Amino acid sequence: MQEPNWLQELIDHLHTKHASHYEGEIATYIPELGKANPDHFGVAVVTADGRVVEAGNSDVCFTIQSISKPLTYGMALEAYGEERVSKHVGVEPSGDAFNSIELEKITNRPFNPMVNAGAITVTAMLYQHYGERTFHEIMSRFSAAAGRQLEFDEEVYRSESRTGHRNRAIAYLLLNFGMVPEHVEAALDIYFKQCSILVNCRDLATIAATLSNLGTNPITKAEVFDIDRVKDMMSIMFTCGMYDYSGQWAYRVGVPAKSGVSGGVMSVVNRQVGIASYSPLLDSKGNSCRGINLCADLAQELGLHVF
Amino acid sequence: MQEPNWLQELIDHLHTKHASHYEGEIATYIPELGKANPDHFGVAVVTADGRVVEAGNSDVCFTIQSISKPLTYGMALEAYGEERVSKHVGVEPSGDAFNSIELEKITNRPFNPMVNAGAITVTAMLYQHYGERTFHEIMSRFSAAAGRQLEFDEEVYRSESRTGHRNRAIAYLLLNFGMVPEHVEAALDIYFKQCSILVNCRDLATIAATLSNLGTNPITKAEVFDIDRVKDMMSIMFTCGMYDYSGQWAYRVGVPAKSGVSGGVMSVVNRQVGIASYSPLLDSKGNSCRGINLCADLAQELGLHVF
Amino acid sequence: MQEPNWLQELIDHLHTKHASHYEGEIATYIPELGKANPDHFGVAVVTADGRVVEAGNSDVCFTIQSISKPLTYGMALEAYGEERVSKHVGVEPSGDAFNSIELEKITNRPFNPMVNAGAITVTAMLYQHYGERTFHEIMSRFSAAAGRQLEFDEEVYRSESRTGHRNRAIAYLLLNFGMVPEHVEAALDIYFKQCSILVNCRDLATIAATLSNLGTNPITKAEVFDIDRVKDMMSIMFTCGMYDYSGQWAYRVGVPAKSGVSGGVMSVVNRQVGIASYSPLLDSKGNSCRGINLCADLAQELGLHVF
Amino acid sequence: MQEPNWLQELIDHLHTKHASHYEGEIATYIPELGKANPDHFGVAVVTADGRVVEAGNSDVCFTIQSISKPLTYGMALEAYGEERVSKHVGVEPSGDAFNSIELEKITNRPFNPMVNAGAITVTAMLYQHYGERTFHEIMSRFSAAAGRQLEFDEEVYRSESRTGHRNRAIAYLLLNFGMVPEHVEAALDIYFKQCSILVNCRDLATIAATLSNLGTNPITKAEVFDIDRVKDMMSIMFTCGMYDYSGQWAYRVGVPAKSGVSGGVMSVVNRQVGIASYSPLLDSKGNSCRGINLCADLAQELGLHVF
Repeated sequence: MQEPNWLQELIDHLHTKHASHYEGEIATYIPELGKANPDHFGVAVVTADGRVVEAGNSDVCFTIQSISKPLTYGMALEAYGEERVSKHVGVEPSGDAFNSIELEKITNRPFNPMVNAGAITVTAMLYQHYGERTFHEIMSRFSAAAGRQLEFDEEVYRSESRTGHRNRAIAYLLLNFGMVPEHVEAALDIYFKQCSILVNCRDLATIAATLSNLGTNPITKAEVFDIDRVKDMMSIMFTCGMYDYSGQWAYRVGVPAKSGVSGGVMSVVNRQVGIASYSPLLDSKGNSCRGINLCADLAQELGLHVF
Repeated sequence: MQEPNWLQELIDHLHTKHASHYEGEIATYIPELGKANPDHFGVAVVTADGRVVEAGNSDVCFTIQSISKPLTYGMALEAYGEERVSKHVGVEPSGDAFNSIELEKITNRPFNPMVNAGAITVTAMLYQHYGERTFHEIMSRFSAAAGRQLEFDEEVYRSESRTGHRNRAIAYLLLNFGMVPEHVEAALDIYFKQCSILVNCRDLATIAATLSNLGTNPITKAEVFDIDRVKDMMSIMFTCGMYDYSGQWAYRVGVPAKSGVSGGVMSVVNRQVGIASYSPLLDSKGNSCRGINLCADLAQELGLHVF
Repeated sequence: MQEPNWLQELIDHLHTKHASHYEGEIATYIPELGKANPDHFGVAVVTADGRVVEAGNSDVCFTIQSISKPLTYGMALEAYGEERVSKHVGVEPSGDAFNSIELEKITNRPFNPMVNAGAITVTAMLYQHYGERTFHEIMSRFSAAAGRQLEFDEEVYRSESRTGHRNRAIAYLLLNFGMVPEHVEAALDIYFKQCSILVNCRDLATIAATLSNLGTNPITKAEVFDIDRVKDMMSIMFTCGMYDYSGQWAYRVGVPAKSGVSGGVMSVVNRQVGIASYSPLLDSKGNSCRGINLCADLAQELGLHVF
Repeated sequence: MQEPNWLQELIDHLHTKHASHYEGEIATYIPELGKANPDHFGVAVVTADGRVVEAGNSDVCFTIQSISKPLTYGMALEAYGEERVSKHVGVEPSGDAFNSIELEKITNRPFNPMVNAGAITVTAMLYQHYGERTFHEIMSRFSAAAGRQLEFDEEVYRSESRTGHRNRAIAYLLLNFGMVPEHVEAALDIYFKQCSILVNCRDLATIAATLSNLGTNPITKAEVFDIDRVKDMMSIMFTCGMYDYSGQWAYRVGVPAKSGVSGGVMSVVNRQVGIASYSPLLDSKGNSCRGINLCADLAQELGLHVF
């Protein structure tokens, strides 16, 4: 890695470059998300040795949404092992949108844990394992990765819970195929809460740095994820993390990443840095426009592409 | 029509011919349905002038299941008019299975009221119209068409309600697209009850004869359905009534018909007769094997095909 | 049927009513079709006892296009019998567009003979049966039904042959699945010629009247189609004849019909009349706007709906 | 990298371990491929500094088939630039089988250059660029990468050309959507020839090593591919190279790879080694069973996974 000062200048430069672009739309399918401020644009980079570089609104909190998916997937792999998890959710990119209700033809599994169907399955498995403690466990793990006690947004949670008809449909279809255990309503409730956990860019970059540092938080030194599972989490983020833009992301940027509909993007550069950005203006595939463009520039400048 | 005596002999002959065949399987996806007796095989014919011919177990009761669909569709057309109903459910055969979760691409409507998605939409519309009285209205109408007070099977209703995860998934997907109003759980509850209404072959043949007699029960002379809606109900049964066998049925038998997974088949010969059969052994498309074959023979013998 | 004078007045009235509407677009995907005149609008009715009523441009010739499909399907049924034909092409409406490349999942058959894939299969079967004489046989049969020697449009044929890439794709996919014999190029060539046969409304109404008259041309008294196959042709037209508008047609108009992209619509009222219209302005589903609306009015006025 | 001697022992060990497994089936959809010998099993590894390690039937020649796809894709990127190529073929994994006829919904592009539809598009673009010289250019490039003059198998080429109905269907569908220029038959002919180029494991490992060495053949030092395009070729191999097993491969093995239906698998370890294996016994997804298992073991032993 370059020196942080040099990095600070680069991040400042890229932030300024992309801050003036107002391409994209704020997600409105969850009513609460529609209240986001289109001016907000933050970036943070945390190196695997614990240094932090920030620019813009890096301390504005937003709900983690789908960026929670690789983290709960890692937790499920730890709880059940890969073989058992793979009976319930695949690892194959599907080319479908994030909220697709399509399942694999013969196995009836969700294609991968990065689409809603897969993530709901993962949370349902965690619920079967942890019971009433599930959300507490998720919150603890996310907090350990972020290096501070996180909270969740009650309003967004209620908004999602009230309007998440498609996710409810997906959950009952999964139940129909025996992919999730009974008590889908309880699992859905946890899923909606998990998506509503509040993070800022610094939190998210620290979580990413924890992954890039093989599971150990580089600032607090807490061992958050099993080293063996971090590789799996990064693999699935690489091939499926950016919805139906994943192939283009792998081609253009070439690092494991995950985005969420509130506007966050988290990228992991293996053994080097964690990168996070926040801007609520999304493209048609549900990814943050500024986030994608900034990451692509950064990957280009720093030569981050895995190939 | 031929003389009833001649008809009695024909029905007896065809009943005997098909009674010995044990092709097909009893539906088990609703646990209660699995208890059906594979020996049971009944037939009834009611003419548009009110004569009744029966053979076999024509007085064994079974749950009406999907045969309720054209009847509630007629009720919704009466309550809302065709234009309004057509905004929520199409009239196009889809080639899909009865329990398909697929909706029309642009409109997000269910393809037609004979697939579960369409029938649930229809019941949800009735619920919006009739509120708490909805099931009572459905029961009254079905009873008037059958010419006696019907009841519903509490066990089957509870069994469907408990295990109908796919129908619940469909309902929430419809809600997601705004095709049904809120309170889907209430609508689903009525739908499960409506499917559990108990009929025997004589009831079902009387209902069919009511349709063939342009909406008036030929025995009780009660005016059950609007004459203008009977044409619509028959049209939709003709093109979509036998699931993804509808095209073959139209080709081979050529009369409006509707089957249900408990093993009933109801056929309507315009202005002539209503025909009903019951045998719980189903083919892979969910239609009663004996019912289909007996109807095909009967259509051939009597020249019932509309063309 | 009403008296022809009365019928003439009705047809004149409906022609005038719809002539002023310029809704729809002329098909341009075959370049030659784009040259059609949007003012052209003709109607003809031929009764099963041979009387002819016409209005507007009923003598303007246009290419028969997809209206050839039920006729060649009848020929294939005669040549091979229903069982053998049904191994290569189904009778089930699919909800797909006319030019869909989708085949049935397990059988790999085209869904029905009214979509291009099915019609190409039918012509390939005719080619296997009749060899080099195939197009001659088709032309003879169509001419006998129309009651005069027909010709085909060399320009349209060449235009289709040169630009029919999708039909060629469909043909090779069918060959891949063994649904058609080798020599697909020869079969395609005949298919393109068959679609280019020139008819006017009087021809088409006479063909329709031949079907309504159980296969015998009511004017020339020639026996054109096997009486047993006419029922099959009408059944398939009823459920699949108007592309993915077939269900709505069955619901709204309720008679067997077939439309073509050049703007023709042919309707058959069993044992009563044949109806034909021509107007090249098509709706988004490929059906003639004026044709559909005039037919719907006529069905309403004359009570033609089968139910 | 470890010392070659150590590597030789490892390769010998893994070859012996997997040679005794006869899982899988020889591809028969191209008749000539069915003649392959199920005993044949070869492996070769070429390091980025030019050392060669081999085991088993590493000198048995087989047709390159789909392993040609990333190579011609690189050639097209060089000829047209990424922007222009991306108008005709995407970079998104689709979850579909290699021979899927599905195209992207709105753009009508093939999903990526690793499915047949995409590879045919790429070859058609090369034909538009190079004209009659196209196959010569392909052969020269492949030969330069392999480090010796390659040839193609006339029998397999003729067999594919004669029976490649599905590829022909795909090509005409692409033409229908304007994704490929006219002269699809010429392009298809080159595609079938390109698939029939004969390589052995040593050739394929050298090609892979050329990619791992950023485009320069590590043995001959010939500059074969633009360094800028090698990253693109590897990215697309990583996300799409192993058909609908690509996600699992990325998860389990984690290196860019491409397999072919004749039984070859080529893997590229960035800046380290090229790996090739040959065994004609394929799993249900069209990948060589021994190849996949050996590669997974090797990746595990050497820690090759990119994450």
